[in-house]
Order: sequence, then structure tokens, then C-alpha cells
Amino acid sequence: MRMYDLIRKKKLGGELTTEEIDWMIQGYTRGEIPDYQMSAMTMAICFVGMNERETGDLTLSMRDSGDKLDLSAIEGIKLDKHSTGGVGDKTSIALLPLVSCLGVKLAKMSGRGLGHTGGTIDKLESIPGFKTEMDEESFISQVNDIGMAIMGQTADLAPADKKLYALRDVTATVDQLSLIASSIMSKKLAAGADAIVLDVKCGSGAFMKESDDAKALAGAMVKIGAHAGKKCMAVITNMDEPLGRAVGNAIEVREAIDTLKGKGPEDFTALVLALGSRMVLLAGKAADLKDAEDKLKAAIADGRAIEQLKRFISAQGGDASVADDTQKLKVAEQILELKAPSDGYVQRIICDEVGMCSLMLGGGREKKTDIIDPSVGILLKKKVGDPVKKGETMAVIYHNDAVKAQAAYERLMAAYITGAERISPKKLICGEVDR
Amino acid sequence: MRMYDLIRKKKLGGELTTEEIDWMIQGYTRGEIPDYQMSAMTMAICFVGMNERETGDLTLSMRDSGDKLDLSAIEGIKLDKHSTGGVGDKTSIALLPLVSCLGVKLAKMSGRGLGHTGGTIDKLESIPGFKTEMDEESFISQVNDIGMAIMGQTADLAPADKKLYALRDVTATVDQLSLIASSIMSKKLAAGADAIVLDVKCGSGAFMKESDDAKALAGAMVKIGAHAGKKCMAVITNMDEPLGRAVGNAIEVREAIDTLKGKGPEDFTALVLALGSRMVLLAGKAADLKDAEDKLKAAIADGRAIEQLKRFISAQGGDASVADDTQKLKVAEQILELKAPSDGYVQRIICDEVGMCSLMLGGGREKKTDIIDPSVGILLKKKVGDPVKKGETMAVIYHNDAVKAQAAYERLMAAYITGAERISPKKLICGEVDR
Repeated sequence: MRMYDLIRKKKLGGELTTEEIDWMIQGYTRGEIPDYQMSAMTMAICFVGMNERETGDLTLSMRDSGDKLDLSAIEGIKLDKHSTGGVGDKTSIALLPLVSCLGVKLAKMSGRGLGHTGGTIDKLESIPGFKTEMDEESFISQVNDIGMAIMGQTADLAPADKKLYALRDVTATVDQLSLIASSIMSKKLAAGADAIVLDVKCGSGAFMKESDDAKALAGAMVKIGAHAGKKCMAVITNMDEPLGRAVGNAIEVREAIDTLKGKGPEDFTALVLALGSRMVLLAGKAADLKDAEDKLKAAIADGRAIEQLKRFISAQGGDASVADDTQKLKVAEQILELKAPSDGYVQRIICDEVGMCSLMLGGGREKKTDIIDPSVGILLKKKVGDPVKKGETMAVIYHNDAVKAQAAYERLMAAYITGAERISPKKLICGEVDR
Repeated sequence: MRMYDLIRKKKLGGELTTEEIDWMIQGYTRGEIPDYQMSAMTMAICFVGMNERETGDLTLSMRDSGDKLDLSAIEGIKLDKHSTGGVGDKTSIALLPLVSCLGVKLAKMSGRGLGHTGGTIDKLESIPGFKTEMDEESFISQVNDIGMAIMGQTADLAPADKKLYALRDVTATVDQLSLIASSIMSKKLAAGADAIVLDVKCGSGAFMKESDDAKALAGAMVKIGAHAGKKCMAVITNMDEPLGRAVGNAIEVREAIDTLKGKGPEDFTALVLALGSRMVLLAGKAADLKDAEDKLKAAIADGRAIEQLKRFISAQGGDASVADDTQKLKVAEQILELKAPSDGYVQRIICDEVGMCSLMLGGGREKKTDIIDPSVGILLKKKVGDPVKKGETMAVIYHNDAVKAQAAYERLMAAYITGAERISPKKLICGEVDR
């Protein structure tokens, strides 16, 4: 086989065989196929596309390009969850303890934040003592012990994807559906779960700005799941304004804790229940969605959820008392308040801009090697549809640097669009794909 | 400027500005833009294309990426000629001496052969003592002295094109019209002539197999010439069977000599007159094409043409007496004759296959570093449309190695298609572009 011939075939609109795709991906991972041939291929794929089988094969080949987690030592159905990323997305921190209350096994690998989106691992590390690095054995035994674990990606999962993504990132070939879907799913499949619930974000703060694109991505990922023999479903959720009210690290953990106590923001609580009920259903722990949701609500109401969060924090070396007293989470003491310029309504909050403000404060990373400040962040007092009076606080900036805070303030002010007319916030759940 | 943005712009169907193209080409030449970004760009160009202005700008930027020949020390209009390459194409060797008889100044750089096509420089070097390496000064003074010179490409002309072509060659992005046209024209423009006649080959032995593609390429190149402020015209000529009867090196020189004596093959003579008359006209040395052709025929008839060839050979250190006695050109003594399998007509000679037979004998190069044997070759006794009797010789293989000759024989036999019905040979001149 020659890479030249495969590039030419794809360029001319052809379909790559299973063998051709695997030869290409394994050869690329080993460095036998140069970047300049692979980037020509990915650009050709951007124009020609890949069909369902090719996309599935690409995913499986990337899944098999490195280490794979073997979760067979965990009893029962192991579930995983993935979000395509957004602003204020602390979902896993509330969702996993809640769902695991119902006996669903959750073994999750999470990532760190980059650019305007945060990462679960960074957020968890704002809990004093919390460890996200662990070996595979401890990870598995923790899931067997308490039903859940979240660790940073240490193993060399899907190295082909890592290499290919880095190449796509510098050659303007990121935004191709099959390439996006296979990238996400190759890592998820290598992480070994039996079933996966996907939260595909849609809107100004998400990678997918348009609802149709998000639905197409959700569909492609669910099909890949089927191709790999896994149960898989996807929910398309709104990311046109930040999720919940907290954007940062420690303050997002605080919000997750509040939510497990039944005192979380309405939209975030609704999302946790929507995703959670589907996970419970996939794991066969409820008769239907309604039943699943009722069970989850009960676990919040009777305190099981918050207790499970504390078990989880303790198991990973963290100070579980933060769940009882969120004051123990270090949030920056200096604040700057964003005041409404006039009476009216919040009509729009440009979502990725809020993420960028958090990054500017030190709460996120511009490049992978940046060190973050977990204590900074933004609390949105007003969200889309809320009425505001002139001079009323719309958001609070928590910071450790007045200069950075001022820059973030100005950017945040520009991201808050207010006006006389009331605009309804967008629906949280925009669609669902189940196959 | 960022290469990422330019790739993305082109991918989305955009038009690159003059500044963007120049920034990209100069940066790529200096190694500041990596191959993997440039190959993504060339693949995007394959799908989106480049308009006339972009193509012109790309050409000028590649022209300006390295050395340029300054021919201003040559008096009068300097003409150049370029062929897109084929099998048996010894045109320059006959054409340039002939045209220079009429006072047209010809300063030409030529290349070596690769794959199934030969190169003028290789062919000239089969003349004992002939030198194709010379410095710019000698090159210019020879044109001033005798009206013409042909040298190998020694200067670093259009290095951007060289680098880009090598990349396109391994990423299946060679066959894009703007990229092909700009590649050819950037080198021609860097070589400094005032006017250029292009011989665009079309057919099974040419890069362009289809007449429409050849016409489009001719059109694109002529437009680039205009964009660069040069007089430029193109003739589309048939390369569906080899040009003339000789394919090799020494035997092609022999055929060129015969042609300047008025004893050349009909098709090759016609081509030389067709291209030559256009060059004469472009140089302002004739009233019209008919007048130009008459003048060229006269130069052949009265011996000026062959005398000019001898002057040219002598000036470049070669033994000019080969023009009087072509036996002095070393042609391999061992022969193998290809016999007609039955009575009928030659219906087709698969052109690039004949070129490959010459390569197999040692007359061409598979890779750039191969050393060629100038004495081997193939003489086509019968061409398309010729009647043959069973057992009659259709072609003669001149070789120095019986094993190679046998392999070439079998391939040549397969390339000669005979049958009962007479098929007319294709027209030599398929089209013309003049702007």
C-alpha cells in the first residue's frame, strides 16, 4: 500500500477500505507516514467526506493505536459520559456521584481545560487534597468499592487521535464531522466502558454553533458506538449562554455541591437530571426515563447524592468536608461587580467570551503548559431573560489581580447584551439521538 | 499573517490576495511554513481552484523566489520555447537552429528526462564533446555570437516551484490546472525571455491525456504570460503516438539532423515548422504565419539550417561533423526487430509505453540519479495508419543488453496495436491559444 494512492483515491471521491484506513492510521502513529501526506488526506476528507463505515473504521483503528483500559474487573455495566465542552460545564462533578447512587458503575477519564472551555480535572483539583492521578488498578478498585472514579488521562489512549488532532489543528481541518466524531469516540472507546451517554453542546459557547451541526455530530457518534458494539446515546444541549451560574474552578465545584443538595441553578439541575436519567436507563436501573428521573430526584432529596460525592472526594484523597462547608473551597476574595447599564432584560450572554474572561483572570489555559488559578472565576447573577435595574449587579468577578480583572470586566461587559425587550432563554435540551 | 488562516480561507472557497500568496510562497521557500500546511493548502486548491489573478500571482511569486536570468545583454527580442513533454520529442534540437537562422535570438534552458519522457539536455549530450553546463556569461555571449544557446538548468531558478512540485508529487496534488500552469511558467519567466511559445502535448504519451485539459492548460499558461507582461502563445499538439520515428537519445539527435536537411519524418517536420513559424512571427521577423513558414522552409532547403546546427554544436564544444555524418553518433549495434503478427494496419501505438521501453533499455531514468545510455533506443518503422504485412518489421530496438531488450520487446509488442481496419493518425495540431 502507498499513502499516495490512498490520498488520490479519497481525492477522487473514493471509499477507503477497512484495511486501507487501518494501514494509514497505524503507519501514521508509528511515524511511517509523514504529516504532509496525512494533512493532504484530511483536507481531501474535508471535501469528499467519509461514509458511516469509513468513519467507524477510522474510529476503531484510532482506538486500537495505543493502550486500552480493561474494565472487565468491574462488575456490572460500566457507563461513561462525554461532553463536547462548553463554559461552566461542571456536569460530571454532580452527575457521576448522583447516578452512582443508583448502583450504576462509572469509570471516567477526564481532561483539562484549554482555551475558553474548562476541564473537569482542573475543577476537581480545586478541592484541597484531591488527586486525579492514579494507576489503573486503583481506578478499577475504587469503582468496585464506591461505584465511581474520575481520573486524568494518564494512559496512552488513542495516540493516533492525539497526533492527528494536533495536525488537524494547524491545517484548518478540524471541522469535519467524521473526523470530529471519530476523534471523540476513539478515546471514549479506548476508555473501556460498555455504554456511553454523550452531551453534545450547541450554541455560541460550543464547538458546534448550529443545532443541525450538533445533531449531525450526535448522530455520527451514536452510529460509531453501534459500529463498535456499544450502547450509546446522545443529548444535544444548549450552550448559547454558560451552563449554571458559576464559571471558573472552585466556584464551579461549589455549584455542583449545591446542586447535589437540591439547591443548584435550574438549568444545570435540569441537565444533570436529563443526562443522569438516560445513564440510569442505559444501565438498566430504571423502567423508563420518568422512573429514572424520579429515582435521581429522590437521591438528591434524601441526601444520598451529597454523601456519595463525599465518598468520592475522600476516596481520591480530597477533603470531603468541603461538601458540608463550601467556604472551605478557596474562592478569590477580591471582587469586581458588573452593573447593568440601564433598566431592561439580559438578552444574550456571549458564551465563549465569558469563558475567555475566566481564562484572562487565570482560571484557564491559553496553552497546555499554563498553570491555572483555581480560585478565580465569574458568577452570573443574571442570565438570559432575567430583568435588570440600572446599576444592579449582573455578574461578580472573583480575582487576584486588579489589572487582569479590569480587562476581564470590560470583556464581560461587552459579552452581556441587555435591552428593553425580554428574550426567552433557549431550551436546554435541543434534541436527542438514540440508536 | 498565519498560514492557518490562509488554508481556512481557501478551503471555504475564498480568494487569496496577492500579498497572501507571496507571503505564503516566500515563507514556504525559506522553510518557515511547514510541508504539512502547504500540502493541506494544495489539496484545498485542488477542490476550490484558483482564479486567473491568483494563478498569475502564484506564478510571479514562484518566479521571484530565487535566481532570475538577466538576458538584457542580448540584443533584440529573446524567445523561449517550452514543451510539456512527451515521447520522441527532440523538437528543440531542430527547431532552435532553424528559427535562429532568421535572426531570432534563442536563449533556452532545458531539462533532463525522467520516467517515460526524455530530456533535451540528455539528447544533446549524446553528441561527442557537447557541453550543456555553462555559466550565465558564456550563455549570453553565445546567443549574441551565434543567435542561440541551450544549457542545463544550473541557476537556482524558481526554487519555490521545485520544493512545491516535490511536495505535490507525493500528496496527489499534481493534477490541478493552476498549479501545473504556474509551475511551468514560473521557471520559464525566471529564465528571462521576452516571448514564449508553448507546445502543449496531448494524448496517451502526454501529461494531459484529453484535448480539453490540454487546451485549458494552454489557456492558463498564455494568461499567466499576459499577467507577467510577456508575449506568449501555445500550440496544442498530438502526443498520442511518439513524435517522429526515433525514441532514445543519439537516434533522436540523428532524426533532428535529418530534419534540418529536409529528410525528417513528416509529422516531426510539420511540428518544427508550426512552432518555428509562430516563434518567427512573435519575434517580428515575418509578415504572417505563411511568410514565416516559407522562410523556414527556405532555410532548410538552402542548407542554412544545418550549418546553424553545426555552429551551435561547435559553440558548445561538440563535434559538429556529426551533422555531416550521423554515423559518428554512437547508436547501439545490437538490434531486435519487432515483427507484425499479421497483415493489417497499425491502429495505435501506446505512446508512454514506448517511452517506458526506452527507459528499460537504459535510455531514460527511473529516478533522478540514474545514469543513461545514450546509444540505445527504438526506431518506429511503422506508425499509426501504416499498412503492415505479417512478419514485416514494425520497429527496431537498439540495445546493449539482451535481457533488457527482451523485456522491452515484449512491452513494445503490447504497445503496438494492429488490426484489419485502417485508422487515420490523429491531427498533429489540435488547437492553438494566442492572447
